[in-house]
Amino acid sequence: MISAFSILSILLIHVNKMKSNQSMKSRRRLPIVEFRKDRVLILDQRLLPGRVRVMPCRRVEEVARAIETLAVRGAPAIGVAAACGVALAAARARGTDARRTVRELRGAIDRLSATRPTARNLFWAMERLKRRLQELSAKSAPEIREGMMDEANRLVAIEEESNRRIGEAGAGLVPNPSRVLTHCNTGPLATGSYGTALGVVIEAVRRGAKVHVFATETRPLFQGARLTCWELRGHSIPCTLVIDSAAASIMKRDKIDLIIVGADRIASNGDTANKVGTFPLACAASRLGIPFYVAAPLTTIDRSIANGGDIVIEERSPEEVHTIAGRRIAARGIRVMNPAFDVTPADLIAGIVTDRGVLRPPYIDSISGAMEIMG
Amino acid sequence: MISAFSILSILLIHVNKMKSNQSMKSRRRLPIVEFRKDRVLILDQRLLPGRVRVMPCRRVEEVARAIETLAVRGAPAIGVAAACGVALAAARARGTDARRTVRELRGAIDRLSATRPTARNLFWAMERLKRRLQELSAKSAPEIREGMMDEANRLVAIEEESNRRIGEAGAGLVPNPSRVLTHCNTGPLATGSYGTALGVVIEAVRRGAKVHVFATETRPLFQGARLTCWELRGHSIPCTLVIDSAAASIMKRDKIDLIIVGADRIASNGDTANKVGTFPLACAASRLGIPFYVAAPLTTIDRSIANGGDIVIEERSPEEVHTIAGRRIAARGIRVMNPAFDVTPADLIAGIVTDRGVLRPPYIDSISGAMEIMG
Repeated sequence: MISAFSILSILLIHVNKMKSNQSMKSRRRLPIVEFRKDRVLILDQRLLPGRVRVMPCRRVEEVARAIETLAVRGAPAIGVAAACGVALAAARARGTDARRTVRELRGAIDRLSATRPTARNLFWAMERLKRRLQELSAKSAPEIREGMMDEANRLVAIEEESNRRIGEAGAGLVPNPSRVLTHCNTGPLATGSYGTALGVVIEAVRRGAKVHVFATETRPLFQGARLTCWELRGHSIPCTLVIDSAAASIMKRDKIDLIIVGADRIASNGDTANKVGTFPLACAASRLGIPFYVAAPLTTIDRSIANGGDIVIEERSPEEVHTIAGRRIAARGIRVMNPAFDVTPADLIAGIVTDRGVLRPPYIDSISGAMEIMG
Repeated sequence: MISAFSILSILLIHVNKMKSNQSMKSRRRLPIVEFRKDRVLILDQRLLPGRVRVMPCRRVEEVARAIETLAVRGAPAIGVAAACGVALAAARARGTDARRTVRELRGAIDRLSATRPTARNLFWAMERLKRRLQELSAKSAPEIREGMMDEANRLVAIEEESNRRIGEAGAGLVPNPSRVLTHCNTGPLATGSYGTALGVVIEAVRRGAKVHVFATETRPLFQGARLTCWELRGHSIPCTLVIDSAAASIMKRDKIDLIIVGADRIASNGDTANKVGTFPLACAASRLGIPFYVAAPLTTIDRSIANGGDIVIEERSPEEVHTIAGRRIAARGIRVMNPAFDVTPADLIAGIVTDRGVLRPPYIDSISGAMEIMG
């Protein structure tokens, strides 16, 4: 139903054996997040790249847990998954009592809003759906259900279209040939459609640029090693994996031309919360004179927040740090801090690639200009 | 025999149950690197903190392999282990043929010199031993053997004494109370005696400072998570573990007062090679205005090298990155870069804590002054 939640471009097997002109035939359509009739299909990203498993979530609670446990992650994909969760709630609400339908849908929105605190796209989608629910509340139960499913569909379509436009807006920033460094995962898996930062690279390559991507592994959950490398391989884009803390010296030694990352929330002044480890990359890039870009849809921008100091940073379980694959790595009896995000100050960011073009400093102006056009 | 290779200060069990005034009684003497009669005892740091196992190396080749495979690591400890390896070669050379004894010892020195390329202390020790061998070459076989064992002993004693002095020189830099961030492992395990950067912290605490240490996990081999946290716990120093890429944001959020790290090789101008991940910490510290110190014995300084660009950086196996505890983490079919060290430019370093006091910029002058005093 919500076909936008799929990607056509991930190769599952034998990627290296394929000729590029045959590749389209071998590609298989794999749902990342997709609402279908009575369930939300979620590709379990925790198991990638070792295992490809699609979870059929039949209850809103299962969708919420999938977001909380990172089966689906990436700010745009979280927003999309939550919208699908609301569509699921609408599909499941079978009664004729309109008030009860509204209550159930509001409950679903509240539950899904409470899954993770930092990704702006989640709140953007949930606020829109809450507003639409308000507008529909005088209607009949079937009308409310249908109206909410339509709205969820629309939000998903907006995210997909934004993604496509980000790729178009940013592709010209990628020199040909070039060496691009990225952090975490911002490809199709992170958004449900084209990707943000990685989408820019993929689009540049599609237009003929010769790009070598350096991907950071992205501790603690290895989204770079597991997901970005997997996606790049699927697109036959050459990729070198490095540990997070090797990125700075490799930027210098291997003459990286460009750094591009995604975002989870952007303040009015351009300060950007993204996967922890982004801020030190930006510090090193600044030292080395390498342009540092952020790519995100306007739905990631939170104009209610003046600067990065006000962004809520999610603190996740110590276990993600001290234990890997079920095996305790760290000494016992110590404290662990595990912030999932950090904030990169706007002055370290050369540009923000959005669905309304590349915003440049001063961001306070360029952001408000872009948001006003968007309405 | 070479008793300097031991530490008294590592607690093996029940660390948390001990009162500080009882702690000395419960401590057990554990060899880190120690030459005893006909073997070199090496604590296998790859198994820590899960398992405490001492490897009895009876052949030089076993010592060399222990260095190559990181059973013993840390620039000063590598130098100490290699010196012990030469002592072992001298102890094993049983014949009366002086020329053959020299040949055997030279072979041992060459083999041990080829184990790892970056740690300066290794070459410092091997060059000294080679020179001493040259001086002894006209003597009888037993005299050569005894002379070489004495020289190895002397080098080990120098490293230990340097360590002690580094702690004394640096302790005053640590504010009371303070929050100190460190990278990798630079405690007793890394040196065989007191430690360098962590030795400074331990000495400051011994003098009464209240210090909370933030330890980076130090990918790929987790020396911070495994060894630094274990050592700090052994000293009852409160410790918080963070992933490497969270250090920058935690420096800011948790108001870190001081960053102090070790070094593997320091060029004449103060450029410092240390565990990969040091350079980005220094970049972030510079951005945040946090003083960034290096602690190392003068034996780590290489005056034959003008600047960091000339330091050989060891590239280690991709497997350290893509596989953890026998389990493949990363997607397949990609390249991996795994430099073990990076170079921090001298201008990012507030001071170098050595066994001859804290050297300050311009390092070209302070280093040459300190080395001349040393002779």
